[in-house]
Order: sequence, then C-alpha cells, then structure tokens
Amino acid sequence: MAEEGAVPGVENLKLQDGEQNPPEEETEDQLITPWEVTSGSQKGVNYDKLIAQFGSTKIEQDLIDRIVRVTGKPAHHLLTRGMIFSHRDVNLILDAYEKGKPFFLYTGRGPSSEAMHVGHLIPFMITKWLQDIFDVPLVIQLTDDEKFLWKDLTAEEARRLASENAKDIIALGFDVDKTFIFSDMDYIGSSPDFYRTMLKIQKCVTFNQVKGIFGFGDSTCIGKISFPSIQAAPSFSSSFPQIFGGRKDIQCLIPCAIDQDPYFRMTRDVAPRLGFPKPALLHTTFLPALQGAMTKMSASDAVSSLYLTDTNGQIKKKINKYAFSGGQATVEEHRRLGGNVDVDVSYMYLTFFMEDDDKLQQIREDYSSGKMLTGELKKELIGILQKVVSEHIERRKKVTDETVKEFMTPRKLKYNY
Amino acid sequence: MAEEGAVPGVENLKLQDGEQNPPEEETEDQLITPWEVTSGSQKGVNYDKLIAQFGSTKIEQDLIDRIVRVTGKPAHHLLTRGMIFSHRDVNLILDAYEKGKPFFLYTGRGPSSEAMHVGHLIPFMITKWLQDIFDVPLVIQLTDDEKFLWKDLTAEEARRLASENAKDIIALGFDVDKTFIFSDMDYIGSSPDFYRTMLKIQKCVTFNQVKGIFGFGDSTCIGKISFPSIQAAPSFSSSFPQIFGGRKDIQCLIPCAIDQDPYFRMTRDVAPRLGFPKPALLHTTFLPALQGAMTKMSASDAVSSLYLTDTNGQIKKKINKYAFSGGQATVEEHRRLGGNVDVDVSYMYLTFFMEDDDKLQQIREDYSSGKMLTGELKKELIGILQKVVSEHIERRKKVTDETVKEFMTPRKLKYNY
Repeated sequence: MAEEGAVPGVENLKLQDGEQNPPEEETEDQLITPWEVTSGSQKGVNYDKLIAQFGSTKIEQDLIDRIVRVTGKPAHHLLTRGMIFSHRDVNLILDAYEKGKPFFLYTGRGPSSEAMHVGHLIPFMITKWLQDIFDVPLVIQLTDDEKFLWKDLTAEEARRLASENAKDIIALGFDVDKTFIFSDMDYIGSSPDFYRTMLKIQKCVTFNQVKGIFGFGDSTCIGKISFPSIQAAPSFSSSFPQIFGGRKDIQCLIPCAIDQDPYFRMTRDVAPRLGFPKPALLHTTFLPALQGAMTKMSASDAVSSLYLTDTNGQIKKKINKYAFSGGQATVEEHRRLGGNVDVDVSYMYLTFFMEDDDKLQQIREDYSSGKMLTGELKKELIGILQKVVSEHIERRKKVTDETVKEFMTPRKLKYNY
Repeated sequence: MAEEGAVPGVENLKLQDGEQNPPEEETEDQLITPWEVTSGSQKGVNYDKLIAQFGSTKIEQDLIDRIVRVTGKPAHHLLTRGMIFSHRDVNLILDAYEKGKPFFLYTGRGPSSEAMHVGHLIPFMITKWLQDIFDVPLVIQLTDDEKFLWKDLTAEEARRLASENAKDIIALGFDVDKTFIFSDMDYIGSSPDFYRTMLKIQKCVTFNQVKGIFGFGDSTCIGKISFPSIQAAPSFSSSFPQIFGGRKDIQCLIPCAIDQDPYFRMTRDVAPRLGFPKPALLHTTFLPALQGAMTKMSASDAVSSLYLTDTNGQIKKKINKYAFSGGQATVEEHRRLGGNVDVDVSYMYLTFFMEDDDKLQQIREDYSSGKMLTGELKKELIGILQKVVSEHIERRKKVTDETVKEFMTPRKLKYNY
C-alpha cells in the first residue's frame, strides 16, 4: 500500500532474507517501490525521472484541458498543480467516455493500522472528484489479506482494521449508490467470479516475473507471491458480476500513488492475454513526511505524520515543531533572503490542501521574498489542516456500522449494464 | 491429482522449463511425485522403499486388528491385502475415536477429464468404507482450479468437469447427509473461512519449501506456487464452519494415494504453527497400467486405461489385448512352468476388485502352478470388471444435476458440534 493509500500494496516493510529490492525501480538517488519511497533530495522525488523510468506518460496541459472540455467540470487543484502528474491510457478512457461507453474507477487501501493520516486522504479526494465529474461506478479494495501476509497481524485484526478504515473512506462523502467497498478476506470468499479472475491472472504470471517486479526471493511466502493477482483482479469488470451484469469488457481507471504502478504494469501486461481491456492509470505524487520530502508520510511513524484523529492542539504542535522549514535561521536573514518553497514542507502541504489558487500564489511570493515568515506560513497551514481533520472527525462520527455494512455488501449499483 | 484420484494433485504433466523433478522423491529405479509415477520393475513400485523414503509408517497386522476391534466391523480387502499399506498418525485417530472424540475424512480428485477410470474408484471405495465403519463427516475436494492452472483447460471447462466427476463419485453410494463435495472454484468464492485458512497456510510456507517439495522453478506460474495451500486447507476443520460450527480442533483423516503425500507432509508441518491438529493419513498403492506395473493407470492414455464408461465389449477387448501377462509363451510351457502373479496385471487387478479371499487364493495357486491359463485368468477379471463398470454406469445414470447440487451445497451435515 502506498502511504498515500491510493491502491493497496505494502508499506514500510523490511525485506526478508532472500528478498531483494525490486531491481528496476532503483536509481542513483531515489528508490520508489510499493514498500519504500526515498529520495536523495530535500525537494523530494524527481517525478520526471520516475516517468522515464516507469515508462508512463506525463500529464500535459492539453490532457487537463480535454478532461475539462469533455466533462464540463473544472479541473481539481491537485491536477492543475501537478500532484496528479502521470498517466497511462487516460486518453482511451476519454475517447470511450465521449462515445458514451462505460468505464469504472478502482482504488484501494491496505488496512495496516487504525490510524490513517492526512496523506491517505489525497487519492480518495481525487477518486471522489473523478466519480463526481464522470458519474461512474467505483470499487475500493481493502487488502486485509495482504496486511495479514506482510505484517505481524492476525487475520481477524486485519479484517477489523479494514472496517475501521472503511469508515474513514466513507467519511469523505462517497455515494453508497455508486460505490462498492470490499475487504479481500470477505469478498474473495463471497465471489466465485473474483476468485476465477484471480486464477486467470495467476496462470499468466510466473515467479520470475514477480521476482523481477517486486523483488520476491526464495524465502518469500507463497501468499505474498500470489498476492499481486489479488491487487490486479479488481481492474477487470469480470470480478464484479453483481455490478457489471457479467460484462467483462468494461475498462477501468485507477487513480493511485505512483509506487503502486508495478502492480498495474503487471496487470496491463496480462490483460490482453485474458481478453480484458488494460486498466488506465492516473498517478499521484506522495505527501512528504513532516520532517522533509526525502521520504513520504508514514502511518507507523508518529513524528512524520498528521493523523486523521489528531486534535487541533496536536496538529499545531506537530507542524510548529516538526514541519521542515525552507525559511532562514533568523528573522533578519529571512527578510533579506526569503524562504525556499521548494523544500518547505508546510508550503508543500498547502499545495495539497489549500484550494484557493490566488491565495496560494500570494503566499508563495510573500514567503519567497521574505515578506512572510515561517511562523506565519505554518499558521496558514495549521488553520487549514485543523479544519480538514476536525471536519473529517465529525463526518466519521456519523458513519455507523450499518453504513459500513451497506457499502461493503456485494450488490448492484445505480448503473445499468 | 493422483490417477488413483485419492486426493487431488496433478497428473501426467510435462514439467515446464525451469521446473525440476522434486528432488527428494527420486531414487535409482522409481520416481513417485504428484505428477509422475514410474518404477523400474515389472512388479511395480517398491512400497517398502517408499515408506522409508517418505518417512511414513508401514501398516502392520496389529493396526488392522485394532481398526476391526475398535469399530466392530470387518477389515476391507484392500486393507488386508496391503493396498492400504502405509499411514501417519492413524493410531491417534483411533485413540480419539475410542474416547468418543470426533474426526472427519477428507479426500479429493483433480477433474482433468470427463472419463474417470477404474483406478479412480479405489480411494473412493476406501473412503466410503471408512465412512461406513466410523460414521463421520466426509469432505471431497474437486480441484478444478488446479486443473485449470496445470492443463490446457478453460476455467469454465474445468468447473464443468468437476460436476461430471462429482456424479461418478456420488454413484459410489455416498450418503448426502454425511458428505460435502465441493469445487474449489465455487467453494473458495463462497467461504470466507476457507479463504482465511488458505491465507494462514500461505503465510507459513516459503517458495523455497514448495520448490523443494514440488520441484517448482522460476518459470512456474504464481497460481501453481500457491496451490499447495488450497489442497492443504480442507485438512483443517476451520475451512468448513457450516459443518463443524466454527470448531478448529477437529482432526482429519485423509485416505489418499501415496503420491499425494508431499502435499500433506507440508500440511502436517504447518499445522502446529497454526494451532490446528495434524491430519492423519492412510496411503494407498497405485492401480497399475494395463500394459504393466512400471507405471500407473492414466486417464489420458486410452490404451492403459479401463474407463468407467467402457462397454462390456471394450472391457473384454482391452484386457485380452493389452493386460500384461505373467503367463508363458505357449500353453505347454505355461502348464509346465506356471504363471508369474507378481508381474501379471490381470492378477493384480483381481487383488483390487475380487472380494472373495478364498477364490482369489485358489486363482493364485492355480495360475502359479500352470493349472489356470492366462485366458482363463483374464476371463475372471473381465467378468468382475464388466459387473463393476456396468453397475457403476447404472448408478451414475440415476445421479441427477439436482443430486449433484445437493451434495455440493455448503450446509450442515447430520452431525452436531
């Protein structure tokens, strides 16, 4: 699971004996895998380099313009500001959409902890926006099986965390008539069609391939080895006959953090051999850790994270104490030299959470020129995040077990196929 | 799947590039794996050697006596004649049975073809006998997923073959109130508890282990790599909450052909780490191919097999034409030297299918002495097998789709837990 939570993978894991780092994702100064995200630069990951390395396509202005034109809706600030920065085949999705052909959205989360952090909101915010502008079905996979396999968790605890995380996801405002959320441990055991889709994928992928893509080794357990087929399966409409009426030809669009791309490169490789359409992808950047953009926010590191359960006081304290600053050592120096927004974590967070473009631009100018001090910048961020988190807490309180059950029951959605 | 059909595995398969023969089962002159059974001797497999190699326990007269004493029922001729020749922990099953503690039976078949042969009947005959004398629940796994992964079959065709084979199994007379037959492709997708049991096994088994046990290699597909967990899962009562009311401590007894032992050595290794009882095993020998005991009967080789659909004429023709004879070249020589029952396939088949001990002993003496000719021996066998097969055909005709559905519906059996 990307810490950003986009599509489930595996996070913060030590490789075991005999497992190697996935060879193909490694470069001199940055390492991006489903298990690890590190950059050699305080500016964070070099995403252009990653696009070249992964072979995806950079999102240019003309694609953004086309999305706006086709849907008649304004672009999300995460798209215009480059946090949705890369894609695969989104043009095909738009072609189909223009012709009135259906598609669906798929994203997910690995429920490794009860505490989700603000970084986990990003891909779900994007997913919600995509569902709003396209009005299409959405499936959200909670990979409790994966977390059981990778972490020191019981199966029962992993399943419980899936329901807890579902509450956070539902709190973002997804429409129950359009959204199916599922735990692997429940849904695989409730859907012969999902299992058959898994099996078909498993027949096409060798150990050699998952070794190359994910760095598995001889001491990797057989559950991990076959898990990529489980993350791949929801990319195909055959996995959800209750939603798609048995149709196997409906294309999928997956918004996910870029570290999940290896799963879907594998999926796209397999798709034509199964006669299924390749999933399209929209890649997001990582929300940096509080201490700096050399790594991403991690739920298992309390110091680097702002949790969705933090009080206003905790948010204020963490940002003031830990958020890496691009400001100068003294007020005098800062006034003279200005702050460096390229490495300032508080400024980076504002680009994710402040919706007002003009205000953000003003802050950028004022901070860079030295007119705005680090404390003032942090105060802006604290105010915004206190609002984001406290509103989230309020909405989450209203999500009952009954609502969770409703979202997680395999059923028809409001669409017809 | 053993051709004998005992517990599903994989039969008659060419190993793929990068797969090796499982190293540990190989000896100078015989090779016994879930995929291949060959012997260097016309007498067939040296089972004593296999016991030493696999580390199982030979069945001695005192165990047979104990089974008879404990159940108050006569021993099956396949037990007294050594076709059930080896075991693991059957004494523990008998200890528990004497104390009134429950256990259950598990066997299976890999549905690779519509045509089952007479060899497939053997383990099911033994299973039926065990159920009759102990009166315990029985689960029968049809590994359509495995056949899909190993063979050039679609998932849909493999699932269809599972239902066809279920009809043959039901025709043996199993009691629907005591027996649950399931297709993996259906049941895994209908039972979150089965999937969780699979997952728990998958977490305990590494690629290294399945490489050592099954000879998997780098080019093995990830479905095959995780399949052993699926054949292992029914050994644990947690996989069947509808039968065992959620109890996870009920021990299992698995009657199976010896070539399936590797799956259950792995299962027994994993069991204590999951807090589950180790399954006990009863190993059966192989029904030899018509042409000789150097290999076993194989459904994919029409010349070596007597199918459960053969007409009386076909049975007569195949036995007369192909059954390897231990008789002499001419009648005169035969009268003088006698026949060799140790290599005579017709005689071997009689030991499997002729229930009358005295008559069999008489045939043995008469054939060995030269008093009985090969043609006369074959005539005895033809009569018996024509009866076995035609009666099977009659019983199978009465098995409706409705009956199959009844056996294959997850449900409570007549027992209480």
